[in-house]
Amino acid sequence: MTAIYQSAAWAALKEHVSTVDALHLRDLMQDEARCAALTAQHGDILLDFSRQRVTSETMDMLFNLCEAADLEGKRAAMFGGEKINTTEGRAVFHVALRAPRDATMCVDGKNVIPDVHEVLDRIGDFATRVRSGEFKGCTGKPLRNVVSVGIGGSYLGPEFVYEALRTDKEAAVQAAGRRLRFLANVDPVDAKRALEGLDPEETLVVVVSKTFTTAETMLNARTLKDWLVSHLKGKATTEAITKSHIVAVSTSVEKCQAFGVDAANIFGFWDWVGGRYSVCSAVGALPLALQYGYDAVKAFLAGAHDMDRHFLEAPLRQNLPVLLGVLGVWNSTFLGSACRALLPYSQALLRFAAHIQQVDMESNGKRVAIDGTELPFEAGEVDFGEPGTNGQHSFYQLIHQGRIVPCDFLGYCESPAPVSLAGEPVTNHDELMSNFFAQADALAYGKTAEQCAEEGVPEPLRPHKVFPGNRPSSSLLFPKLNAFSLGQLLALYEHRTGVQGFIWGVNSFDQWGVELGKQLASKASSTLEVRTELSKARSSNAVPEGFNPSTTAMLAHFLKHSAAGKLAAAEELATAK
Amino acid sequence: MTAIYQSAAWAALKEHVSTVDALHLRDLMQDEARCAALTAQHGDILLDFSRQRVTSETMDMLFNLCEAADLEGKRAAMFGGEKINTTEGRAVFHVALRAPRDATMCVDGKNVIPDVHEVLDRIGDFATRVRSGEFKGCTGKPLRNVVSVGIGGSYLGPEFVYEALRTDKEAAVQAAGRRLRFLANVDPVDAKRALEGLDPEETLVVVVSKTFTTAETMLNARTLKDWLVSHLKGKATTEAITKSHIVAVSTSVEKCQAFGVDAANIFGFWDWVGGRYSVCSAVGALPLALQYGYDAVKAFLAGAHDMDRHFLEAPLRQNLPVLLGVLGVWNSTFLGSACRALLPYSQALLRFAAHIQQVDMESNGKRVAIDGTELPFEAGEVDFGEPGTNGQHSFYQLIHQGRIVPCDFLGYCESPAPVSLAGEPVTNHDELMSNFFAQADALAYGKTAEQCAEEGVPEPLRPHKVFPGNRPSSSLLFPKLNAFSLGQLLALYEHRTGVQGFIWGVNSFDQWGVELGKQLASKASSTLEVRTELSKARSSNAVPEGFNPSTTAMLAHFLKHSAAGKLAAAEELATAK
Repeated sequence: MTAIYQSAAWAALKEHVSTVDALHLRDLMQDEARCAALTAQHGDILLDFSRQRVTSETMDMLFNLCEAADLEGKRAAMFGGEKINTTEGRAVFHVALRAPRDATMCVDGKNVIPDVHEVLDRIGDFATRVRSGEFKGCTGKPLRNVVSVGIGGSYLGPEFVYEALRTDKEAAVQAAGRRLRFLANVDPVDAKRALEGLDPEETLVVVVSKTFTTAETMLNARTLKDWLVSHLKGKATTEAITKSHIVAVSTSVEKCQAFGVDAANIFGFWDWVGGRYSVCSAVGALPLALQYGYDAVKAFLAGAHDMDRHFLEAPLRQNLPVLLGVLGVWNSTFLGSACRALLPYSQALLRFAAHIQQVDMESNGKRVAIDGTELPFEAGEVDFGEPGTNGQHSFYQLIHQGRIVPCDFLGYCESPAPVSLAGEPVTNHDELMSNFFAQADALAYGKTAEQCAEEGVPEPLRPHKVFPGNRPSSSLLFPKLNAFSLGQLLALYEHRTGVQGFIWGVNSFDQWGVELGKQLASKASSTLEVRTELSKARSSNAVPEGFNPSTTAMLAHFLKHSAAGKLAAAEELATAK
Repeated sequence: MTAIYQSAAWAALKEHVSTVDALHLRDLMQDEARCAALTAQHGDILLDFSRQRVTSETMDMLFNLCEAADLEGKRAAMFGGEKINTTEGRAVFHVALRAPRDATMCVDGKNVIPDVHEVLDRIGDFATRVRSGEFKGCTGKPLRNVVSVGIGGSYLGPEFVYEALRTDKEAAVQAAGRRLRFLANVDPVDAKRALEGLDPEETLVVVVSKTFTTAETMLNARTLKDWLVSHLKGKATTEAITKSHIVAVSTSVEKCQAFGVDAANIFGFWDWVGGRYSVCSAVGALPLALQYGYDAVKAFLAGAHDMDRHFLEAPLRQNLPVLLGVLGVWNSTFLGSACRALLPYSQALLRFAAHIQQVDMESNGKRVAIDGTELPFEAGEVDFGEPGTNGQHSFYQLIHQGRIVPCDFLGYCESPAPVSLAGEPVTNHDELMSNFFAQADALAYGKTAEQCAEEGVPEPLRPHKVFPGNRPSSSLLFPKLNAFSLGQLLALYEHRTGVQGFIWGVNSFDQWGVELGKQLASKASSTLEVRTELSKARSSNAVPEGFNPSTTAMLAHFLKHSAAGKLAAAEELATAK
């Protein structure tokens, strides 16, 4: 197959840029037929992309590009369980995690759905027993607190969903009296934050690591085991404490058992689930079921599955993930934007951007095509964002008058926590959404010097109050935020990333770049080497060796100024035990 | 004065790019003299910028650029209280907020320091009385909870400092039994999150708004007043409830009083304090003093002042904010990076990036120079980040193998919450810091195809495991994280932004871009218009009018799917009252 950047469709889009450069959204937005054409709906989810810098011709060309990239073939291969993650020799089958019980989805000729549902059933059963108090801590108390220990894909997705559901009415009822915390960072500060105010007798630790060898997660797991044992010793044996208070989400039964986890409390997943695509596996399902009940997890999975079906079946031109994906490629590759802003008009989605940063930047932040050839263009954007209206009082200044940053506006028709005050013109949610509608238009239209003059802006100020406009955005309007629609939202963005990777021709499912830094060639430091040298220096005052001059100097500075810290740690340990 | 981009210094740097393009950090890092030269220290804070793509010649040229931009003159004007924010006719004098009592710092010939300390003294006195229980709620209970209501500059900075101090030992002792929450977003979900579990009888609301007219903040203030009054009515009059439970940080005494705030409990600041530079005014000082005690605030201000002196007095080549600033200009303007990653190896700094996003992107995300002429280059980068090690398992993939994103690594020699487990080679903090040291080298060195071959990587995989390296970063090593060093960190980044703005010739202290969207020309929607039309639609089922076809269709969709929400809101209100 010809590389995508050598295709006629690619060349046509390159050439088309100058046509679009001559247009301004201020004018395009007046065209009723164009606006109507540049929307798509799935159920009650509305995507309006009329504020993208596209014409119907652009869209035709982008769909030609999909054809040139064999987007539909790649999608079919993914849903067919083929090993499209060729550099790791794996299928990419997170869609199977949320398929119904009666589905048939095969990898290597084997239907994986029975395994998926066997684990889900065990999660449902376990969560129910913990929540009811049947499964107890080692001193007989119910386990009201859960600390989920994991990093990256074992953390960001579950945290995003946990935060999003906190103010959902049903979920809040289910969560009454319970606490879910996450511990990801190897920084001991994170452990302190996660454990603040928790009673070990009432605390269940979920260790989430595919291989059960992730350095940060395993050190945190040992830290929490130490915390549990040091507080509960005398009341039970270490073995009993571990069995009652630590469970695991992992593919390595052996390593979990060696750690002391009861075989009955190990929840598996499969090599066809990538870390950043694992929210719908036990990685997310277990902690979320413990906090919000298993029904919430079922609704979440149903929502994700609903979007999977839409992605698989809807015509490309009405297909939400495909549309978001082709617009991403257009903005990034052809119009040259390095970044993308995610702007949910919902405080419940405060950790959405952090999760999508991982999903998207780890997937498409690549320098070579899936066949190993170097890309002559930059794939993968930098995603960032904060909830609107907060962002409006922060970085929107740059978005309006600085660099061009394509924006995704996300809004909900209904609020999960409505407030309506006497004497106000609108409810608080309508006020929020007034901003949602207005900001997209502000970016598109901008404001000219003439308009400033008409408004009576003094001449010297006018250039400062001119907004160029013509800044692209998409608006996504969901009916309401709940477990089901969160599943839809997650799958929508997972597939958007997949679509961009399919078009660019990269492997969106490997992540060789996260390995560097752990082991490196000589003279450059690696985590392993620094750890070894720090260990030596702490025990024998040896001077760290083998690093470049900068690292050597920094390590000396570090050691010099942390001597007191070392003593404090020793004292703290002595006091705690 | 010649525009900076027409200066010889600018042209020299442009030309110099090709020289630097021929170098690789892998080689540069072996040069001991170069590494030693590319560091600077202020007290025990070490900045190592040897992993920036610079030579000593580059640095010379960058300091020539500082001279061409009259950086020192502009800095002197700022510290001299001159009205350098010319588009708003204001001085830029946040450095006066943290000057000692005996300093003299004048605006319009008037020493502002006595006013600054008068307010600080009142904050100290008020916070002490609240914390001791002398100042009580209207039912006689001590006020253990504080909800700080503000958005943008009235929120992000104080939240960053609040989170950073949560695990500081001294601060934690002071905060025992107390809670501080922030309410920024007009989304009622944010109000629900902020109020969760709080007893109104024990809750003090701090309304933070310079003009007391910020739409989001005032709606939230009315929402909280309604919450207080609806829960406490019958126990006290509305007037008494308001006086005992609501205080204000604002320059508008009149409007605060009209809202019902006692004149004694209004804490002012001045028009020479920009919102995003206001953390050291009552905006941050009051909520932080209430939570952590006034001594913590004093230490924080002293740290910021210490960095102010360093910025004002240290030679440019040893001046930390200047160095960070010139390197920012170099990476952005000359090497073409649109983004910058902030990577604190401290979970306590989890909201640092969000605050710096505002400080930096709102300041330098501009399209015109301070004199109104259009810039022929892009000023202002996109800042984003998450704490390391979390980022390593997320977006670092892109940073290693995708686009070039200059990184700021931040680390601490001592941990505020040390953990040392028996049997581990290093403490948890040393493990964290091993990553800090290794990642910077990984970015600089990368890994070649030859190295992959030597390691036995099979040939087809090699291109995927090649890391180009040569990716720039700076490393900042602080002795420890506490109130004082947080003040230093804040001022360091405030001044970095100022330095970049001074060099680029923009006004880093106005923000005309945040105004757009509130009022717009016809056909484009504005918050005001949407609010008006939504209000009409809700009360009379009128069809929203006057918008472009897209907004009209989206509003119709919104209204159709939010009818149930409207009813639910009415019901909730009826139940609550």
